[in-house]
Amino acid sequence: MADKVYRASTTAPVNIAVVKYWGKRDAKLNLPTNSSLSVTLSQDDLRTLTTASASASYSGDDTLILNGEVSDISGARTQACLRELRARRAALEAANSDLPKLSTYPLKIVSENNFPTAAGLASSAAGFAALVRAIADLYELPESPSDLSLIARQGSGSACRSLFGGYVAWRMGEQADGLDSRADLVAEASHWPDMRALILVVSAAKKGVSSSSGMQQTVATSGMFKERITTVVPKMMDLMEESIKNKDFEQFAEVTMRDSNSFHATCADTYPPIFYMNDVSKTAIRAVEYINAKAGRTVAAYTFDAGPNCVVYYLEKDAPTVLGTFYQALSSVSGWKEGTASVKSEFQLEDNLASVLKDGVSRVIMTGVGEGPQKTNEFLVAEDGSTVKR
Amino acid sequence: MADKVYRASTTAPVNIAVVKYWGKRDAKLNLPTNSSLSVTLSQDDLRTLTTASASASYSGDDTLILNGEVSDISGARTQACLRELRARRAALEAANSDLPKLSTYPLKIVSENNFPTAAGLASSAAGFAALVRAIADLYELPESPSDLSLIARQGSGSACRSLFGGYVAWRMGEQADGLDSRADLVAEASHWPDMRALILVVSAAKKGVSSSSGMQQTVATSGMFKERITTVVPKMMDLMEESIKNKDFEQFAEVTMRDSNSFHATCADTYPPIFYMNDVSKTAIRAVEYINAKAGRTVAAYTFDAGPNCVVYYLEKDAPTVLGTFYQALSSVSGWKEGTASVKSEFQLEDNLASVLKDGVSRVIMTGVGEGPQKTNEFLVAEDGSTVKR
Repeated sequence: MADKVYRASTTAPVNIAVVKYWGKRDAKLNLPTNSSLSVTLSQDDLRTLTTASASASYSGDDTLILNGEVSDISGARTQACLRELRARRAALEAANSDLPKLSTYPLKIVSENNFPTAAGLASSAAGFAALVRAIADLYELPESPSDLSLIARQGSGSACRSLFGGYVAWRMGEQADGLDSRADLVAEASHWPDMRALILVVSAAKKGVSSSSGMQQTVATSGMFKERITTVVPKMMDLMEESIKNKDFEQFAEVTMRDSNSFHATCADTYPPIFYMNDVSKTAIRAVEYINAKAGRTVAAYTFDAGPNCVVYYLEKDAPTVLGTFYQALSSVSGWKEGTASVKSEFQLEDNLASVLKDGVSRVIMTGVGEGPQKTNEFLVAEDGSTVKR
Repeated sequence: MADKVYRASTTAPVNIAVVKYWGKRDAKLNLPTNSSLSVTLSQDDLRTLTTASASASYSGDDTLILNGEVSDISGARTQACLRELRARRAALEAANSDLPKLSTYPLKIVSENNFPTAAGLASSAAGFAALVRAIADLYELPESPSDLSLIARQGSGSACRSLFGGYVAWRMGEQADGLDSRADLVAEASHWPDMRALILVVSAAKKGVSSSSGMQQTVATSGMFKERITTVVPKMMDLMEESIKNKDFEQFAEVTMRDSNSFHATCADTYPPIFYMNDVSKTAIRAVEYINAKAGRTVAAYTFDAGPNCVVYYLEKDAPTVLGTFYQALSSVSGWKEGTASVKSEFQLEDNLASVLKDGVSRVIMTGVGEGPQKTNEFLVAEDGSTVKR
């Protein structure tokens, strides 16, 4: 009889921060200079599916196939995750000799995103969250999502927030070993389920500075960065948590926009300066401001990660005003869900805004707040250990 | 015999700050939140020519003709300048009854720039400096340029720096009455005469937020602005003065670029955010970084005021590297001085940078450090009080 192939499969979500992570106080452990907070997005629209498998029949090193291609996992970040998970499994095996010695078998991991890499969405958060969750399930580890977030954090900082659904804080912590730098659930998705996100995918001529090196340049050279981490962000975190607890969209939106501005300001204050937003991104800001002005209240909030894409948060009840206005200008691009055409706005973007957006937005993604990682019976590794063809 | 027309004519320069003025602590008196420092640019290339005249034969209110058009001078800023100057003249007349009573006559002021307003260059600094200097000459006031800077400052903050040539600081001062908030000569143009400036005039689709209202929005809303004015700028001012005294271009350039970044970062941190630089401006930054990298040392420095134009400072000895490289990419736009074609660079901008600049730069202005206001016999008001046709 062939050796058994042990498998576990999970999906994990993307998260988009509303108080941004930018700056490490320890680059090896991925310990941040400030706390951050994000909204987990629905896996119906954006998710990574990962199957982790282990078998005595596997030979050689651990392997990862990502979106159909063999991926290099020799990097320190991935190795740190695998090492930590394996050590925990080994401890279980040491305590219970009945357990199969999975920790001694090579791992074969296969992973796949349901969204195009070309979209420029930070897929590493979902990727590392899925990797850690899938291996933890394979190893039957008893650790809580918050405990696992300590491991995922070492793969990619923001990945720690993707171990929860809903509204998630990453507490920066104070300890040198990072054991208090972990994700923490602020509120379940069900607490405030009507949060929606419209992502305007903006084509960039060229990939900008990677966030990992960019943030360390900011830490090293920005004269105003210290003020952000010591004064600005702590205030933003308090206001953001309060707004989520109270389901106060106006406050949520203002903090989201202010924090995005603050983050990109520290990038611009870096030497040499880092610019992630382009003229199309800025036009998206003007469009959000226009919609809010026309509505006479704050119905939409923009936020930008380390790239030109604009994420617009809004509430389902304001879909006509927000979604409808963007749809009117951008109906020709792909990504709109069925039925969006019937969501009518009473406002129309000014021609100069609409034309810049039309030229610069390549597609949209309609999504909203969603759940954390989900165990699934959809496997990317077959029972015989072969990669499932899709 | 008709009443005599008293006249005085002066030219005044534009200045481009290398440590920026952004924020008022007193909006009425134009008292700044931080000191600033600028290079006065040559009047051969950019200047305002202003003739101030007074006569008992004039009737009605004071008038100003600016670039051939009647200009409204009822605004508080212009009125403050006229009132201060007139009061000083009245004091002289009170002390010496032989003096003609010019303070009681209406003023007729005619002013003209030698550069297109469309260039989007801050002409208010040269304009108010020329206005104040011309009227002070007309009134034969004994005040020093530094004393007159107190008056020009009330017209337009940065105008106070245009009362001197060379390298000029505006000391923010501390007093509530603003009497210590004045311009101060750091070094004559002759101290470091080989400073050159290449201005890349970038066409903006739309005029951005005015600097006057923009800076007050920053003061009111930016979470990081305080750090700029209390910590960043004082350090920048010290380093900048030191670099000028030592004629240390590398230090001058680094501070210039860092301060421009810092200023635009506080704009981006404003709520709602203010963006003066566009994608063409950012490409100009990349071009300067490229030239410095190729040269293996810092030969060029970018700086941006409240608009998309890029001012590149460099030393005459590096003209081949700096001017030559930009010329190669931008030879088709207007504004190059005769002989520039023969300034050959060994480097060539990458195609993607060159093409963005070529599409986005509408003209260039070649200039350099220059002198302060100059008395001239070129009058824009004739001896009979009529406006000189040009």
